[in-house]
Amino acid sequence: MNAPEPLKLTSLPDAAAGWTALRDPDRSGIWRHRPAFGVPADIPEISLGEGDTPIVPLPRWGAAHGLPHVLAKLEYVSPTGSFKDRGAATVISVLAGAGVTSVVEDSSGNAGAAMAAYAARAGLRAQIFVPESAPAAKRDQIAGYGAEVVAVAGTREDVATAAEHAAHAPDVAYASHARHPAFVEGTKTFGLEIAAALVDDPPLHIVLPVGNGGLLLGAFKAYRELAAAGFRASLPRLHAAQAKACAPLAAAFAKGADAPLSVQAQPTVAGGVAVGRPARGVEVLAAIRASGGSTVQINDDTARRTRAELARLEGLDLEYTSAVALAAASRLRASGVIKSDDQVLIAATGIGLKDAGV
Amino acid sequence: MNAPEPLKLTSLPDAAAGWTALRDPDRSGIWRHRPAFGVPADIPEISLGEGDTPIVPLPRWGAAHGLPHVLAKLEYVSPTGSFKDRGAATVISVLAGAGVTSVVEDSSGNAGAAMAAYAARAGLRAQIFVPESAPAAKRDQIAGYGAEVVAVAGTREDVATAAEHAAHAPDVAYASHARHPAFVEGTKTFGLEIAAALVDDPPLHIVLPVGNGGLLLGAFKAYRELAAAGFRASLPRLHAAQAKACAPLAAAFAKGADAPLSVQAQPTVAGGVAVGRPARGVEVLAAIRASGGSTVQINDDTARRTRAELARLEGLDLEYTSAVALAAASRLRASGVIKSDDQVLIAATGIGLKDAGV
Repeated sequence: MNAPEPLKLTSLPDAAAGWTALRDPDRSGIWRHRPAFGVPADIPEISLGEGDTPIVPLPRWGAAHGLPHVLAKLEYVSPTGSFKDRGAATVISVLAGAGVTSVVEDSSGNAGAAMAAYAARAGLRAQIFVPESAPAAKRDQIAGYGAEVVAVAGTREDVATAAEHAAHAPDVAYASHARHPAFVEGTKTFGLEIAAALVDDPPLHIVLPVGNGGLLLGAFKAYRELAAAGFRASLPRLHAAQAKACAPLAAAFAKGADAPLSVQAQPTVAGGVAVGRPARGVEVLAAIRASGGSTVQINDDTARRTRAELARLEGLDLEYTSAVALAAASRLRASGVIKSDDQVLIAATGIGLKDAGV
Repeated sequence: MNAPEPLKLTSLPDAAAGWTALRDPDRSGIWRHRPAFGVPADIPEISLGEGDTPIVPLPRWGAAHGLPHVLAKLEYVSPTGSFKDRGAATVISVLAGAGVTSVVEDSSGNAGAAMAAYAARAGLRAQIFVPESAPAAKRDQIAGYGAEVVAVAGTREDVATAAEHAAHAPDVAYASHARHPAFVEGTKTFGLEIAAALVDDPPLHIVLPVGNGGLLLGAFKAYRELAAAGFRASLPRLHAAQAKACAPLAAAFAKGADAPLSVQAQPTVAGGVAVGRPARGVEVLAAIRASGGSTVQINDDTARRTRAELARLEGLDLEYTSAVALAAASRLRASGVIKSDDQVLIAATGIGLKDAGV
């Protein structure tokens, strides 16, 4: 496995120059990393103040799970309550800069709310395609931002297809969190923030809830670009937590397959990771393997128990989708993939209030 | 959330020394201001990463209301979704440092959730007293942190009295957001962050939702201490937004009274400001007057319309209690108290998801 080297961003000869290419010290939030965004230089900044999320230790939860060095990055401490804001900000900025006047997206969850909010911020029309089965509370949240909510019968893939077709109209763009390349430019800041904040004691493992894998791909890209800029920033092992009810990536990883397996999705409380056909699944699997990471499947009982335990031990209330990542970290410790001395960082991606109706 | 930024207040003659007394440049969040906290020096830091909330302009909403220079500080971008985290962190830190093992609080809203969360974080037992009429969703949120929710029949004051009595047991402390002096030490960081972030273009007005007034008192204290430390930081005019259904401070302000008037509270969607007898009302009124501020009463229709308008124009979804402050800013502009050229900052105190059940 990897022999991680200590990351000393500022002590390396060429680090100062490298960091200049990746961040502007006078800025804050994700826009601090604007020099690193692979997007046109003249885009407007459609921002709600996203990024710079806190990193906190979990001493009591960690002690209960044999993880004395476990941290959580509270990605839900964000304008719309999830990490999706990082990517929505960059996607909508790029589209607004390109003169688009209307966007479409397909998501009844965190991504739909984030895209609707940032579209409103930019003064763009938004159509958000959701499955007919999407709960009223989630539809209402999206509609609250002035977006048109379009309910589609059929599978999750039928919803995506309907959104793609709608995006063929003039001046309309498909602002897909799963497919638009600018989304990962935004989520990349998650990894850049970790590298900068934990320079003296970098994590050996990052455990994330993975549906489409936008945050995992962002973390992977961040460390690749740090290395390219001259930092000896060793890539943490990236572990993908999925819901047992819908685990095409975990199933593929277990079989050594390069592409997500076809699965029959079951209902789950962890709706944010219940993505049957992740659009960039091949890349996600490659990133997990390149990092020396792994995948874990968590059932709903464990997700519920983990969420409740974390709230009681640490005062943090996450949505079930995020609790899946904590449960995965515990599982990886039990199986010996994570050692007791390892520094572990968990992405706490969505606020518990999102699951009020679950 | 903003990470440490270059400090520009040092351009003033004696500012460097003064700022040292008020903040530690190597820290982030509210604990950056630990040197300014009027609390014992050796308390533990019970933290969930609170503070450093973003400040964003509201160009489209401002244009619609004749306020071209209006900003919002997104206090809801915080671990439990409201500004109460600032004060809960300092109160629970002080109590944990004093060896308390159990705390009581009376609030079915943001303060109850915040105190329950920080008590959990500290490993303290918590009893949260709520009115029998409190919605199940809010009780569930508090109970989720492992706190005991105690429903009390009668008025809001009966609930507070029950909490006070419970706090007389040994090793139990009354962690009242309305009364504990350490609460304002925490909310003081709201004002200190504004002064540091907007040093080149400070706000002439700060408009806040006011129930007990903990955030307004914190802002007032921050500017007093900045002045005492040698900064030429002029106190912004502090305007208190109340719900028309329960406006004891606004009623007193209008009559020139020094103490809150007795009111018959009516139901309102803005539950966070529906405090019939604010414990520190005399201080709040004095602070408003000392700053050249004012009070505004907003009815529920206006609060609903304002919340919806802000979400559609800016992509920000606030709870109704916070929308009241935006409506108040618009009213103050219409009445000429706020001029077109004035820089205005509005405290966006609570996340819209909190009102899922309203």
